This record gives sequence, C-alpha cells and structure tokens, in this order.
Amino acid sequence: MAKFQVIILGCGSATPSARHQPSCQVVDFRDKLFMIDCGEGAQSQFRRQGLKFSRLGHIFISHLHGDHLFGLPGLLSTMSLHEVQGKVTIHIFRKGAELLKQWMDFFNRDSSFEIEYDIIEPGERRVVYEDSALTVETFPLYHRTECTGYIFREKPKLRHLKGDMVKFHDIPVSKLQEIKEGADYVKADGTVIPNAALTSPADPSISYAYCSDTLHSLRVARDIEGVDTVYHEATYDSSLAAQARDRGHSTAAQAADVAAKAGARRLIIGHFSKRYIHGEDILLKEAQEIFPDVTLANEGLRVDLL
Amino acid sequence: MAKFQVIILGCGSATPSARHQPSCQVVDFRDKLFMIDCGEGAQSQFRRQGLKFSRLGHIFISHLHGDHLFGLPGLLSTMSLHEVQGKVTIHIFRKGAELLKQWMDFFNRDSSFEIEYDIIEPGERRVVYEDSALTVETFPLYHRTECTGYIFREKPKLRHLKGDMVKFHDIPVSKLQEIKEGADYVKADGTVIPNAALTSPADPSISYAYCSDTLHSLRVARDIEGVDTVYHEATYDSSLAAQARDRGHSTAAQAADVAAKAGARRLIIGHFSKRYIHGEDILLKEAQEIFPDVTLANEGLRVDLL
Repeated sequence: MAKFQVIILGCGSATPSARHQPSCQVVDFRDKLFMIDCGEGAQSQFRRQGLKFSRLGHIFISHLHGDHLFGLPGLLSTMSLHEVQGKVTIHIFRKGAELLKQWMDFFNRDSSFEIEYDIIEPGERRVVYEDSALTVETFPLYHRTECTGYIFREKPKLRHLKGDMVKFHDIPVSKLQEIKEGADYVKADGTVIPNAALTSPADPSISYAYCSDTLHSLRVARDIEGVDTVYHEATYDSSLAAQARDRGHSTAAQAADVAAKAGARRLIIGHFSKRYIHGEDILLKEAQEIFPDVTLANEGLRVDLL
Repeated sequence: MAKFQVIILGCGSATPSARHQPSCQVVDFRDKLFMIDCGEGAQSQFRRQGLKFSRLGHIFISHLHGDHLFGLPGLLSTMSLHEVQGKVTIHIFRKGAELLKQWMDFFNRDSSFEIEYDIIEPGERRVVYEDSALTVETFPLYHRTECTGYIFREKPKLRHLKGDMVKFHDIPVSKLQEIKEGADYVKADGTVIPNAALTSPADPSISYAYCSDTLHSLRVARDIEGVDTVYHEATYDSSLAAQARDRGHSTAAQAADVAAKAGARRLIIGHFSKRYIHGEDILLKEAQEIFPDVTLANEGLRVDLL
C-alpha cells in the first residue's frame, strides 16, 4: 500500500533537553517528504532517520516561536551544501518569512535551490499544498501568538473495478477510468449498468491533523472533524490546567477531548514540558481515560497513518 | 590553582554529522565562561557539559558562516527562559550583529537579559574584553570571508612573597601589594631592600589562541607568537592541500607548522571535514610529524591550559 507515515523528529517544548528535541516532524506521503515545524537540531534528527533532503519540498511552520523554527537556517544551508536542486517552499506567517529571508539571503546566498515563501495569514483556512493525491490545508490554533494547524488529506481514491463484471459486460479499456471515478456504463443499446454493479467502494481517504501549539478549544475539534489521526500538543498534566491556559497550551486530557470530539481514530500527543523528565506516563494515562487510542510521541517514532 | 580551561563543544566543519557538532567551544577562566563560535546545537552541548548559563557573559564569533553561529538564536532564547540576568555581549562582525539583532528583537523580545553587540571590524587587532586578570584580543584570520581569531591572555601575575624575608624586615601589610607587583622596599632609615630579595618570580601568564577558519598563514603564526596553547583548524589531510587552499582552510600539517612557528607549547586541532568519518588519526599523525604536542579536538574534551 502507498506510504502515508508521520515521523516524529522532536516533541519537546520550549528548549531542547536530554530527553526531547524541539518541535519537528515529517510526513512521508508516497516518498514525498513534508516537514512540520523545524526546531533547532531538525537537520540532525532528519538525517538520523535516514531521510533524504532531495525528497523534502515543503516545510510548514505553525507559529513564530523559536522552538518551532530555529532549525531552519541550518537545515536550509545543509540542504544547499548537499546540492539539493529545484525549490523548497516554506509556509509561514509573514514576519517569519521576512526574518528568515534576511538570514538566508546572507548566509545561504549561494543556495543550490530556490526558497519560496508561502505567506500564511492569521486565522485563514486555505489549501496551501495540492498534488494529484494529497492536499494540505491550514486552520487556526489558539496560542499566545498567531498559530496555524495543518491537515493532510488524501484525495478521494478510485473505486475498485469488479473484474468479472467488466469482462461480462465487455467494457472497453477506454471507459475504465471514468467507471473507477464513479460513472455508470451505458451499453451500445442504451442499457445502463449502474456503477455499483461494476465496482466496489474506494479505500477510505486518510487524513492527519497537526495541532501544536494551542489552548484547549472546541473550535479545533470542529475544524479537524473526521480526521483519522490527530497530533495534539499535551504540554501538561491536569494538575497544571491553569498554567496550560495561561500559556496557551493544553493538558493531555484536553488533547484527548479534542480528538474524541473530532471523532478521530487515533491520537498522538507531544510537545511535552521538560518537567516530565522521567517519562510522560501520566500524560498517556490521563489522555487514555478520555480517548482509547493514544500514542506518546518520541523522537524516531513512526506512525503509519493508513 | 585558578582554573583556565577550554572545553570543546563542537569541532566539525560545515554541517553537524553523526561524529561531530559544528564549531563551538567554551573557555572557563576562573568560573567565568567565554564561548567562541556558536554552531547549531551549542546550547545542548553546553548543558550536556554541565555548564551554567548564568556564568556566560561573552560570546565571540569568528566569522559569518552558519556553522559558526546558527546556534545563537536558540542559545540566547534558552538563556532567557532560564532567566539569566544582566548582560551578554556578543563580539561579531557588523552584518552578523544586524541580522542577529533582527531575530532577537523579534524572537527574544522579552529577554531576561540585555544583549550587547560589540562590532568587530575586519582585520582589526583590539582588546575586546578585559577584566582584572584576563584580556581577550582579536587578530585577523584568512578565510573566504572576513574572519577573526581570538587570543585569551592572563594578565601578568603577582610575584610570590618570601615570608621569612618579609618577617625579617618587619614589612608592614600595607606595603605587601606593591612589593608583589615588583616594588623594592625602602626602610625608615632609607635602606633599600631590592624586590628580588623579598619575592620569587610570578607564575607565568598563560595564553590561548583560537584560529578557525583560516588558510595556512605565517601572519597567523606571527600574531599568536608566544601563546601557550593554540587551537588551529585542520580541516583536511595533506593530500587535500589544494582543496584547503581553495576553500580557505588548512591541513593538519599546516596547523602544526603555525603552532611550531609561533613557539607554542601545545596544539589542539579541530574543524574536521566530515570525510574523516572513521576518525582523524591521519590528521593527528600528520600534525605530530611537525609539532610534538598535538591533541585532536572532540566534543566534551577539556584541556587545562595552565
């Protein structure tokens, strides 16, 4: 089956620690790589996972806090030293694009590839990436500064032909694509063979939502309704709910609540406070009380989204 | 004895690798910390060595290539999260100060401490730091872009009093400081007791020179003449001397030649090309053929300079 995987490169908060790296992850969709956030050290984590710079064409930044983007200058410079060709698009708020461009125009002025800046406006919902099989769209998160989430969605897939029926009705090859797309078949004599007789349903289209950093918000649950897998920040345990609110973060239980209300199948939690130096079991436990399928993020974790 | 130590935090070149981090080191002088260069990941290396942000007051950047300074935004932001107080001075070329200030004014606008920028002019020789016991001065290096080295020098130390002679001549306490500084003692009857009779020589003043990145240059040897310990880049082995010259770097043998001509006591080599993935023994061997006391830099290496 075609690959659709998320690889966690960093799931700590605020500063790198002995336990976790700052925020960064990669979505591997059929061998195209998409990076979400790019904390310091992202380039090292990327290579440690055996990923190829030449496959990375898009980087999506959620917001302009250093722990989500200080890895960009080093990553982009190293990509140039590796003679990556073509174009890398960075999806980022305007001020971040300005600041990054100033650095890259100086430190990476001999870049082997073009850097394109796609400006995200605060609060917008927009498809910021699209190819024949995938879209990536933004939706607002609610942090101390403008912040955007990203939803990766497979496009609707083709229905499966029933080989015996195609043969029985002697359907020409030229018609098969439109039948897979849902069309009925009309025979030369005008007889209509309904699509349902010729095909079985398409595989479901899979989706993945990235929600970090954000307050607990039902608006987030609504915006990501129906996604299969949710990554949601869970900076704190429930005893620190007031602190979470003050700092624009969520507790693990709140992350689980959002996943449950969105009707998701699976939740990955991350962006852990460094206070959980001996492990995030308390966060896992609190989330599991509310939502059944919870995974603790960790550097190097790979989750098949299919 | 008072501490004067260099701690290597990164001694790779160009990009972080599985083997080495980009350039960064810390001079620990009597518990004040001075950072030289600040490649990506410096903050993590710094903490891994158990060093305290509150003791770091000066950062010296050699030149404006990313592998020597992309760690600054993260380091400074983390220092602010750790509520470091007072002032941190960054010694850096003008354009670097401008670019860094733009980032810090945005990403670290609530900094707990003041960031001061000390502008280094290309080619200048200047004392950029001075306290009662130490100076740090710049001197030019010869790279593809403006580059400066740094020399750390202990100030002349006090002579040692001969306790029995002080007692014999019944010298008052109020006179002891000037005698330690070299003055003779004049008795009430006008008799002069020469300083040499009252003191033994001061301990030697120790010095350390940082030379990275640079071409092989006898001007460097002249500028650091008489220093005790030299850190000199040794990016390549001798078979790549042409490449070293093209790229503004040195071979290990050239680093040793500079240390020898400078009359140094000890040489530390670093800034290794990532091609030496199985170790830098060839660089060590080539340097040792020219200079006796060579140490390969490595992350975590501590060298007592005394």
